Amino acid sequence: MEMLKDCPVGQLETLLRQLREEYQGYQARGLSLDMSRGKPNTQQLDLCQGMLDTVSSSLGAVSESGIDCRNYGLLDGLPEVRRLLADMLQVAEDEIIVGGNSSLNLMYDCMTRALLYGVYGSDKPWCKEPEIKFLCPVPGYDRHFAITQHFGIKMINIDMTPEGPDMDQVERYITDPAVKGIWCVPKYSNPTGVTYSNRVVRRFAKLCPAARDFRIFWDNAYTIHDLYDEGDRLLDLFALLKDEGKEDMVFIFGSTSKISFAGAGLAAVAASRRNIQFMMRQLSIQTISYDKISQLMHVRFFGDYRRMKEHMKLHAAILRPKFQLVQDIFREELEGLGVAGWTEPRGGYFISFQTLPHCAKRTVALCKNAGVTLTSAGATFPYGIDPEDSNIRIAPSYPTLEELETAARLFCLAVKIASVEYLLTTSI
Amino acid sequence: MEMLKDCPVGQLETLLRQLREEYQGYQARGLSLDMSRGKPNTQQLDLCQGMLDTVSSSLGAVSESGIDCRNYGLLDGLPEVRRLLADMLQVAEDEIIVGGNSSLNLMYDCMTRALLYGVYGSDKPWCKEPEIKFLCPVPGYDRHFAITQHFGIKMINIDMTPEGPDMDQVERYITDPAVKGIWCVPKYSNPTGVTYSNRVVRRFAKLCPAARDFRIFWDNAYTIHDLYDEGDRLLDLFALLKDEGKEDMVFIFGSTSKISFAGAGLAAVAASRRNIQFMMRQLSIQTISYDKISQLMHVRFFGDYRRMKEHMKLHAAILRPKFQLVQDIFREELEGLGVAGWTEPRGGYFISFQTLPHCAKRTVALCKNAGVTLTSAGATFPYGIDPEDSNIRIAPSYPTLEELETAARLFCLAVKIASVEYLLTTSI
Repeated sequence: MEMLKDCPVGQLETLLRQLREEYQGYQARGLSLDMSRGKPNTQQLDLCQGMLDTVSSSLGAVSESGIDCRNYGLLDGLPEVRRLLADMLQVAEDEIIVGGNSSLNLMYDCMTRALLYGVYGSDKPWCKEPEIKFLCPVPGYDRHFAITQHFGIKMINIDMTPEGPDMDQVERYITDPAVKGIWCVPKYSNPTGVTYSNRVVRRFAKLCPAARDFRIFWDNAYTIHDLYDEGDRLLDLFALLKDEGKEDMVFIFGSTSKISFAGAGLAAVAASRRNIQFMMRQLSIQTISYDKISQLMHVRFFGDYRRMKEHMKLHAAILRPKFQLVQDIFREELEGLGVAGWTEPRGGYFISFQTLPHCAKRTVALCKNAGVTLTSAGATFPYGIDPEDSNIRIAPSYPTLEELETAARLFCLAVKIASVEYLLTTSI
Repeated sequence: MEMLKDCPVGQLETLLRQLREEYQGYQARGLSLDMSRGKPNTQQLDLCQGMLDTVSSSLGAVSESGIDCRNYGLLDGLPEVRRLLADMLQVAEDEIIVGGNSSLNLMYDCMTRALLYGVYGSDKPWCKEPEIKFLCPVPGYDRHFAITQHFGIKMINIDMTPEGPDMDQVERYITDPAVKGIWCVPKYSNPTGVTYSNRVVRRFAKLCPAARDFRIFWDNAYTIHDLYDEGDRLLDLFALLKDEGKEDMVFIFGSTSKISFAGAGLAAVAASRRNIQFMMRQLSIQTISYDKISQLMHVRFFGDYRRMKEHMKLHAAILRPKFQLVQDIFREELEGLGVAGWTEPRGGYFISFQTLPHCAKRTVALCKNAGVTLTSAGATFPYGIDPEDSNIRIAPSYPTLEELETAARLFCLAVKIASVEYLLTTSI
């Protein structure tokens, strides 16, 4: 196929008429599909249906360690479940707190505690500083940026490269003592799918931030979420930091939201013993204990980490064809047109799509007007501002293959329309 | 029995020797009993054992309203469960958020949001004010005070009267714009067991605080936790506030921690629609949704509010004898000695015990040294400072009747020892 930018105006105008006609066909179909979030599908949730059988009046709710999970207690979680998630996050059992159903909530809590109280090693609460800043690799996870924006923390864009954040930029910015942290999704990044390279992780371990209480928010959301048998390998930042004597610099987050139940999984934060002890003192003010019935259900269902990792292959078998279908359609519809690029991640929940400049918002709007809701254009950037207006996050997990095919075709059509419109505007 | 203060010194000295001998007998028994918290006992937890059967692979986890409780969504809770807890807290379904397993955590969250962002109607986040203060009826709930202390909020003691907080003091202090709120447990107060009188609640509804964003933290923890068929009646503050056009002034909290499972119940915050909408915007930054499997289990087990209220009679039948036993022993051992007073609550989880001045810490230490852990003396006051050192919170729920008898006898002995020691000191 011909590169669209090389087409004469007349030909583009003819093409646009054809594309719009095709688009009207989609509009007439009355589609209604939400692809805005990385939401597991019903088939995936069914994989853990057996978890609902793990507690009952006959099985009771006393853990193997002898804890009555119905009563108060064990603020940092059941020992068995700490073991399970410690193995997942590659930390020791006393380097983890398992709490609640949402790692996002744990990140939010870490941030509010830092703001109101400080982290281990802080001179004062972060909110008492005249200004604080966070580094935000872009495109990134909108909910991370929402937290920092909500609290008025100034966000600084860091370019994502194919091997992770641009570390030159990171190293430059952390010389500013107002820079207190960085958001990272180090494996199968949201939305790019990039896994940080060994070189990048090693540079993280060597960081010497001006702020003594700088924290890497290491959201390892997709740590065992491979789509293929051979998954990406992420270097163990925590171990490297320990070698440097800098293990207090990282907060590691993870959850089973995309392993067990999205709405009723387990979340965990892992960190150095000093960080954990400091957090536990604060946490004892916040709550008495988290829901241990849910913890018990998880540990009874999964048993150990090996079995949990095995379980992830079942997820991969459901998700892989969805990613492949979308990528196949993208190639079929868009390859060679010179108007788009997309990632082909080996894990995680997203495909990151790159349009021509000024085409992302228009593409998303066109899909919306034909009944397919995508993540808002710009959402993957701090303040919702994509300077190029060219990044779109595609979340293929929830729809059926049939729905996905329709949505992907519509999406490609929308990309083409937006691209031709853009080329016509710029050619005038 | 004779009033101890009227005894001659010699007689007191003889008595003290006898009491200490008796005490050594207790020490020799190697007791080990924790009565420090209002923790439900196993028998109570067993009342809800059937809740564990409400979800299973065959029953599934789709709610009556058609929601797949395994997936993300419904930040404010399942409609059915909002209905259930709205009925309990006497609010409408759109005046409540059901979230997590801990009302303490919801209070903590309300406080952190207020500090970092402000509440509906705030000019600025509370943490940007030069100083903020909270009113604390005393004796009160230690975990309330822990939150305010943790964030450096200045706490002001308000005397509790037999019908609630001293409203003259409250009305005087709220003329200070730095006073942003008050902690209240309006029914079966922790620890006094007092239910606020109609007169007190009406005065709450008429409050005109200097701070426009003043909030009553109305922790209705024991709203249906009657020990007797005829429970105390608490006037509906929220309705009264609505009559005054001041319904934004209150945050109401409740939970099923002492209805279903202490460690795995449901918590809720109720407030005016404006407050709820304001909170929901903040909450959408904090998390995606709370655990709906637990919500589903509750609503399937309890069905509706009427049945939940009926269920509380089963709790009462277990708890009432415990309260009565302790009170009987107190009367038997201490009546007429002029060294003690105690409350006889008609609900809730605590008996509040009043010693002579300077005797609470000593009494608690004596119990501890004989193997019975009580709530720390002073814990019921801000900063852990009971100016009189005379209040002790008794939590009779957890031990068996047999253990409770031993503990109550030991406690009375400790009170007598501490009292005689005190009288001997002051008589010198």
